[in-house]
Amino acid sequence: MARRSFPLSKVYGLLEPGPVVMVTTACGGQANIMTLSWLTMMEFEPPLAGCVVSDRNYSFGLLKATGECVISIPAVEIAEKVVGCGNTTGAKTDKFKKFGLTPLPASKVGAPLIEECFANLECRVIDTSMVDKYGLFILEVVKAWIDPSVKNPRTIHHRGRGNFTVDGKRIRLKSKMK
Amino acid sequence: MARRSFPLSKVYGLLEPGPVVMVTTACGGQANIMTLSWLTMMEFEPPLAGCVVSDRNYSFGLLKATGECVISIPAVEIAEKVVGCGNTTGAKTDKFKKFGLTPLPASKVGAPLIEECFANLECRVIDTSMVDKYGLFILEVVKAWIDPSVKNPRTIHHRGRGNFTVDGKRIRLKSKMK
Repeated sequence: MARRSFPLSKVYGLLEPGPVVMVTTACGGQANIMTLSWLTMMEFEPPLAGCVVSDRNYSFGLLKATGECVISIPAVEIAEKVVGCGNTTGAKTDKFKKFGLTPLPASKVGAPLIEECFANLECRVIDTSMVDKYGLFILEVVKAWIDPSVKNPRTIHHRGRGNFTVDGKRIRLKSKMK
Repeated sequence: MARRSFPLSKVYGLLEPGPVVMVTTACGGQANIMTLSWLTMMEFEPPLAGCVVSDRNYSFGLLKATGECVISIPAVEIAEKVVGCGNTTGAKTDKFKKFGLTPLPASKVGAPLIEECFANLECRVIDTSMVDKYGLFILEVVKAWIDPSVKNPRTIHHRGRGNFTVDGKRIRLKSKMK
């Protein structure tokens, strides 16, 4: 990934459309990946996002223990790898190896970036008060990267049970909304 | 809208893809609409969703006061009305009238359904503990409706500053994920 620093003020535009993302965590030299769609923006700047992680996920423990992760946004070209990561548990499998994904060192957190994703957001957990009740981690994006060689990436959106929508046409409407 | 009751167990498949939605509220005979993208599923069943509403929105007060709303999901055909609702404040405007949207009585909450939307989800606020800090309302969907006459609705996804993606191709991948 020819990566370029991406302004934190524009991160909401990457997550607000609701793409399926991959979230990486790392602890003790071992990194894991989970696939996730239960994510919302919560603040523009510094960018905050809320993500819901089931405690049945292997990544739940890593995220809780380290307080760090990377949100990686895949385009449709690697959809099968994304779904593969969602169907496998990191307790038994090195998902980077199994699915041919490449970990890259992040700059501010211990979790790795994923080279094959067009955007990578380094995050720190800033609020765990809703973790026990809802599995809701509140994250601050502390550094964002995009791959400038990827033009108009088309993300995938999960509709349940293996059904996805791929980004189609882009439209522009007169709007005062940020 | 020829409406049909929709199973609560399938609601996540409507919200998880991250569409722009409209949220209606009502108080004292007055109804309002806000446009919103900061929303995530939080539980499958009963379906819980978290939505972030700025206290600068007129709807914030109505939602806090009544503890009820309807999440209405529009398809691309009414995208201009959706953006219009996002660009206008309900403090001064009857948005139903201004944008030619039709309120219909809900069955379990005081807020209205929107006839022109292909899905309407009646919601009750069940947790306000994160409202003061983050504007996060946790909602339980108590009744869901779809318009069975709308086949394969294409939703819109907000990328910021008037830029939207429209649903494109649907794909199916072998997945064990719910």
